[in-house]
Amino acid sequence: MKKHVVGVDIGGTKLATVVADTAGNILNKVRKPTLAERGPEYALQLLFDMVHETIELAGLEPTAISAIGVSCGGPLDTETGIVYSPPNLPGWDALPLKSQLESEFEIPVTIENDANASALAEYRFGGGRGYNAVLYMTMSTGIGGGIVLDGQVYHGANDSAGEVGHQILLPDGPLCGCGKRGCLEALCSGPAIARRAQAAVRNEKASATTLLDLAGGRVEDIRSEHVLAAARHGDALALHLVEETAYYMGWGIANLVNILNPDIVLLGTIAVAAGDLLLNPIRKTVSEFAMTRPAEAVKIAPAQLGEALGDLAAVALVV
Amino acid sequence: MKKHVVGVDIGGTKLATVVADTAGNILNKVRKPTLAERGPEYALQLLFDMVHETIELAGLEPTAISAIGVSCGGPLDTETGIVYSPPNLPGWDALPLKSQLESEFEIPVTIENDANASALAEYRFGGGRGYNAVLYMTMSTGIGGGIVLDGQVYHGANDSAGEVGHQILLPDGPLCGCGKRGCLEALCSGPAIARRAQAAVRNEKASATTLLDLAGGRVEDIRSEHVLAAARHGDALALHLVEETAYYMGWGIANLVNILNPDIVLLGTIAVAAGDLLLNPIRKTVSEFAMTRPAEAVKIAPAQLGEALGDLAAVALVV
Repeated sequence: MKKHVVGVDIGGTKLATVVADTAGNILNKVRKPTLAERGPEYALQLLFDMVHETIELAGLEPTAISAIGVSCGGPLDTETGIVYSPPNLPGWDALPLKSQLESEFEIPVTIENDANASALAEYRFGGGRGYNAVLYMTMSTGIGGGIVLDGQVYHGANDSAGEVGHQILLPDGPLCGCGKRGCLEALCSGPAIARRAQAAVRNEKASATTLLDLAGGRVEDIRSEHVLAAARHGDALALHLVEETAYYMGWGIANLVNILNPDIVLLGTIAVAAGDLLLNPIRKTVSEFAMTRPAEAVKIAPAQLGEALGDLAAVALVV
Repeated sequence: MKKHVVGVDIGGTKLATVVADTAGNILNKVRKPTLAERGPEYALQLLFDMVHETIELAGLEPTAISAIGVSCGGPLDTETGIVYSPPNLPGWDALPLKSQLESEFEIPVTIENDANASALAEYRFGGGRGYNAVLYMTMSTGIGGGIVLDGQVYHGANDSAGEVGHQILLPDGPLCGCGKRGCLEALCSGPAIARRAQAAVRNEKASATTLLDLAGGRVEDIRSEHVLAAARHGDALALHLVEETAYYMGWGIANLVNILNPDIVLLGTIAVAAGDLLLNPIRKTVSEFAMTRPAEAVKIAPAQLGEALGDLAAVALVV
């Protein structure tokens, strides 16, 4: 009986490989910098070595591993296993990641974009357990999303479903990394919150001392963490920025609630760090903007897997 | 072998019952006014009589019918078969429609809200055939929606999924029937187009003669049909109104494309009447506002079932 799997988490800055049992317990982990600028061949060779190393460190034979799950930045095709030029992995252009890993290790490989894999991990091991319709939204450098219906990732026509961060709210709003304007991501990601905070501080110098102090006196160093910290200390400007963030998030989530009627919306990273300071005004906006029936059905909660999410995302694909 | 089904289409103004074979061919139809103001008991008794009559007119015994499909305004619960106060059916408050029909006819009854049933009909018999992820949007008195994934209606947590018309685009926009502001429905439904047209005519009397002529000279009688007719004749104001409608529809559909990554979006009634006059600028806005990958995957097309949709919606539930 093969009771173990390998999880591979491919990010733009780090690679991580883990061995886990089929209950999702992580036995071992190896973590190295991706050095993405060296291109895909370097990263792939490094990845192969790391997988071998992780299995060895776990005291297992390669034959004890039943499958490899890979969580990677998209876009990618989950059927062919080809990765199509993720923004954070330069040169990974039509890279046949699945088949290369299958050739090397001769076991089945499942690849999935990181937001979808994270959603599945929250469904399997975290806050989404027991729910039929789970929407997971990252809230960090970007706003990604994954939809898990009846225990399966919902992929859509070509593995592009769940791009909830590129819902456009303000077509004349701030420019988004995707090239459009006023996407939810351009309003509520970490960098977007920081940009709004920096602009607000520049406009209201008198009342902006707390935020500035936290950022070491440099407006351009204000980050979303400083906004949360200042808001917790009751700083009026920071509280306003949190309310504004919650308004846009709540508006976007209300639209998603009307469309998807999820049982639960799980919010990651910034929402986890902020807790009810951000979640309560989000819940209030959702109940104001969404239809009564789906609004009554939905729970809005922080994601639960924290630091373990990346590893469990990869593992969730193959257990 | 029971090779026939009954379809029941319950609207606020009319009731229709049909007998169809399992390929979706309608054998017979009875149609009567709902007289909704007389309350649910009157309508239910009428419906029972109509079902009996339709079966008899088709020359069939009641035992030849395998199931009854019911398309009805929501909200309703598809599992318990209880209808919860649809806006167009006053007094239908927690009405156990499914169990009452099952008691009367002693065969299985499936009930579904009309937008979902219509989406399923388009999937089974119309423009959605062969597609795994189908989004159907009505575009008439309101903007409803139904999502069909892998041949099944997607219901969400409590049968409220697919409320695509209540996606909020302009939180300070025109009041919607649902009580919120700036929903897609409040911008692009037939009455919403008419309201925008009437306001535009009041503001630009000089160039508004075509629209006014079509409405018999009365601003308050301008309807969405007049806007389409005037636009077809090249009237500048009407063309602007069509472009504006397409902009909002395209914006809303782009968000849906990013979230659901459908193979096809089928647009009903007004979009069918307008054809490419409206569909082409909608397609243009979708390709500008949606992410490249899901935008490339999606077809945006008119619904195909036309007048037969209501009957086939009910039939599609049980074939």
